Amino acid sequence: MFVKNAWHAIGYSQEFETGTPAARQIIGKPIVVYRTDAGDLVALDDRCSHRFAPLSRGRCEGDMLRCMYHGALFDRTGQCIQIPGQDKVPAQARIQSYAVAERSGWVFVWGGDPAGADPGRLPNFLPLEGGEFTFAKGAMDYRAAASQINANLLDFTHLPFVHTASFGAREDSWKEARSKITPVENGISVTWWVPGAIIPAHETRLEVRVVDQLLMYEYTVPGHLSMMMEFYPENTARSCDFGTPSIEPVVRDYNAQSVCATGEGTARYYYAWGVPRAIPGAEEVASMRLEIAGRAFEEDRLMIEAQQRIIDSTPDDIVMVPNAADKAITLFERLMAKAAREDSESAGPLS
Amino acid sequence: MFVKNAWHAIGYSQEFETGTPAARQIIGKPIVVYRTDAGDLVALDDRCSHRFAPLSRGRCEGDMLRCMYHGALFDRTGQCIQIPGQDKVPAQARIQSYAVAERSGWVFVWGGDPAGADPGRLPNFLPLEGGEFTFAKGAMDYRAAASQINANLLDFTHLPFVHTASFGAREDSWKEARSKITPVENGISVTWWVPGAIIPAHETRLEVRVVDQLLMYEYTVPGHLSMMMEFYPENTARSCDFGTPSIEPVVRDYNAQSVCATGEGTARYYYAWGVPRAIPGAEEVASMRLEIAGRAFEEDRLMIEAQQRIIDSTPDDIVMVPNAADKAITLFERLMAKAAREDSESAGPLS
Amino acid sequence: MFVKNAWHAIGYSQEFETGTPAARQIIGKPIVVYRTDAGDLVALDDRCSHRFAPLSRGRCEGDMLRCMYHGALFDRTGQCIQIPGQDKVPAQARIQSYAVAERSGWVFVWGGDPAGADPGRLPNFLPLEGGEFTFAKGAMDYRAAASQINANLLDFTHLPFVHTASFGAREDSWKEARSKITPVENGISVTWWVPGAIIPAHETRLEVRVVDQLLMYEYTVPGHLSMMMEFYPENTARSCDFGTPSIEPVVRDYNAQSVCATGEGTARYYYAWGVPRAIPGAEEVASMRLEIAGRAFEEDRLMIEAQQRIIDSTPDDIVMVPNAADKAITLFERLMAKAAREDSESAGPLS
Repeated sequence: MFVKNAWHAIGYSQEFETGTPAARQIIGKPIVVYRTDAGDLVALDDRCSHRFAPLSRGRCEGDMLRCMYHGALFDRTGQCIQIPGQDKVPAQARIQSYAVAERSGWVFVWGGDPAGADPGRLPNFLPLEGGEFTFAKGAMDYRAAASQINANLLDFTHLPFVHTASFGAREDSWKEARSKITPVENGISVTWWVPGAIIPAHETRLEVRVVDQLLMYEYTVPGHLSMMMEFYPENTARSCDFGTPSIEPVVRDYNAQSVCATGEGTARYYYAWGVPRAIPGAEEVASMRLEIAGRAFEEDRLMIEAQQRIIDSTPDDIVMVPNAADKAITLFERLMAKAAREDSESAGPLS
Repeated sequence: MFVKNAWHAIGYSQEFETGTPAARQIIGKPIVVYRTDAGDLVALDDRCSHRFAPLSRGRCEGDMLRCMYHGALFDRTGQCIQIPGQDKVPAQARIQSYAVAERSGWVFVWGGDPAGADPGRLPNFLPLEGGEFTFAKGAMDYRAAASQINANLLDFTHLPFVHTASFGAREDSWKEARSKITPVENGISVTWWVPGAIIPAHETRLEVRVVDQLLMYEYTVPGHLSMMMEFYPENTARSCDFGTPSIEPVVRDYNAQSVCATGEGTARYYYAWGVPRAIPGAEEVASMRLEIAGRAFEEDRLMIEAQQRIIDSTPDDIVMVPNAADKAITLFERLMAKAAREDSESAGPLS
Repeated sequence: MFVKNAWHAIGYSQEFETGTPAARQIIGKPIVVYRTDAGDLVALDDRCSHRFAPLSRGRCEGDMLRCMYHGALFDRTGQCIQIPGQDKVPAQARIQSYAVAERSGWVFVWGGDPAGADPGRLPNFLPLEGGEFTFAKGAMDYRAAASQINANLLDFTHLPFVHTASFGAREDSWKEARSKITPVENGISVTWWVPGAIIPAHETRLEVRVVDQLLMYEYTVPGHLSMMMEFYPENTARSCDFGTPSIEPVVRDYNAQSVCATGEGTARYYYAWGVPRAIPGAEEVASMRLEIAGRAFEEDRLMIEAQQRIIDSTPDDIVMVPNAADKAITLFERLMAKAAREDSESAGPLS
């Protein structure tokens, strides 16, 4: 159950170099992505029309791609325009092409008919466009369904149980924490005030050690997270009654993340951690934060993959009993189901 | 095709320590087992009612167990009694609990409704209760159905073919061997007289090297073996016409074994080798016997896993042609089929 | 979809030694092959009639084979003639035997009823019978269907795309190449003239470096390749209008290859490279050629296994668009389909 008509993250800009086709997988489909001499990104089915050899083992020729099994040459629209030893190329020798968007170092592919690709649905990674933050980036493969990773990211009440060792999350703080969940265009907005969080000095590189955290993120279909993390002096949350603080944050970080459903039970998780360029040694701090985040996301991965194995061995007639904290998950899953329905209602070769 | 309403071995006592939940698998179901502060063993489905995270990654709190994904707390009956950030806990937030029995260092779980757990069906590992023997214990995982391991243990005619290198079994001896098979409550009793067996001195630590072996075991549902192995001077078997000898054995060992069906095509095999405490260096002798047995059971495993692979690739319309020596297997498989039928006829949430 | 009534390659003569049963797999069936004291090869189902233990873990006894699980003894026709501890052996305790043919160092098994085994369908590896060539031999396991390997070998237009690094195949040469495809008894004859091929000196051990290659092979059901490779001085192809040259080749090599469908998605590929004994250091040259060929076949394997993975993840309603160069493949696949139909129409226990 995939959402086709959506932007799926397939990596960071530097992963795609002119002359080197790259194999990726989105919503169960193998695709090949290459950069033309002019620097444009092209995405096609990773499957020659002839005998289904992978084009990702092919050879870039200008803005075209040659299958290196029997030499069929495809243009960027997916049309085969040359078959060695053959005068005519049949019109049906063509493969699906996909719309690609490259924004601020991220690359996304629209999983449905490229004619319907909607730039308005690109993730709202706004801070990347500007210059406030410098980023460190990572990725992680999951043997679990994307939906479980989405559910993890939509409910931060797991932090004090899963992330004590890495992020230093504390049960005491989270008992006091308050959240607000609001529908937004194509997604959910989630806000958390976490008072009295203890932040290790090595993480903030600030003298503030006990802070109130304000986490504000949007989570949009099919799995994009855009989050501002603001750190305030202790008691700020209570002073503003867990609302909008009247003071500036001591520091703020920004996170862009995206979950790509590569297959039915597999996913790739991309995450970029941004720290303000204004901080001394910002790039080094970003790397340090990413290293901590990497450990945290590994904690998630261990739990989620184990959860997936349990789900896979659970009889169908046993149902999950939702918590109150599942509200954002429930709303988001409805959006995903709606999007999947719209996929199957829409026309076009890929719907 | 599992038998639910039976005791399934899940390990030895020392594997379960207070404070450390352990993951086990019985009849296709993941369970979590933990020891309370008071030392009692608790077994629950290894699956949080919330989003099916594994409770075996959880945290013991007194006699309760907390899910370390989002913090749900379960009591020893499987009822969830606390969900962080939520005032009320719905009654349906509960998971199945299982009856556990701990006897003489073995731990068993009743796979069906705990209300029906019948202590009378615990394996008849009587010698463990007393003090005659000291034991060395081992376990082995199989990529084969439990039924194939049961069949192996119910027919010892494989000894002179599979276990020449380890147990020193001899075709000549086994040609003279005689067996008696008798139904018992919930199982089969098997007796073998094996005259003229050559026992390596290092195994017996006795000067007797050529002996008559008397092997007497009960094999009960779903896969418990309780065996006395008696060694007599040569010609004892013939002197009593392969019946009951009028003299005491030179020495006797005792074996407790149990096969747990972990899944459709997987099993865990537990085995404890007991030697009389009265023997000098009894514990060391027990370890030595276990080491030999471990090699023998590895010989079985290689054969049985290969057999399983052949079975898996064999078309359904090809049937096995039983030997006369399969009598005990046939009787036992009928008992297992009967037990499985009774499972499906019984009422209760787990039937 | 296998062809039963055909000869399937299972290895080279030296793989089968008296006293050592060998496990092989053909068309999804595990078989055991052993050599009798007299040197004959016997092939049986690798599955004891008793409880399906693998006979390839058994013990050769003269021209018979004993199951080393419970000791059943089978003669070379597959009849069980002894069960330890049992006076009578039921007639139905028998397993299928297969016809085996050993020719010039190759061993083949007829996959259907041995009564129908047709020596006339053995591969036409004629040069092996004579003494012109000395051979170096190799084998390779594939995680891909045999049909994909057959398709690879039936269409050499892949050479300039897949085998530039190993065989030094050149696109320029292959643009000028011409082929002729002719049906033969039970297969396809393919001839290629490749003008202006550059052959590395280390490969030919000749001073000729630019040559015209004449490749002539027959490909017969279910996957036997018998190929003469002749090397001529440059421009020979054009001089004879890509027909039969009036001069002798400078040198010629011979290739015998065979693809065995071991299972639905697996195969074993055997290949023997022959060079004329008359060449100085012929055996060393043959080894050198085999080493180059091994690298080339590894190039094929990487492509074909990747192609197989793409096929496995491709929806059923997406069809391949054949090239003109697929003609030999298409003809051959028709022969295979016809053979499979004849299998199912024929009578007999294995049809």
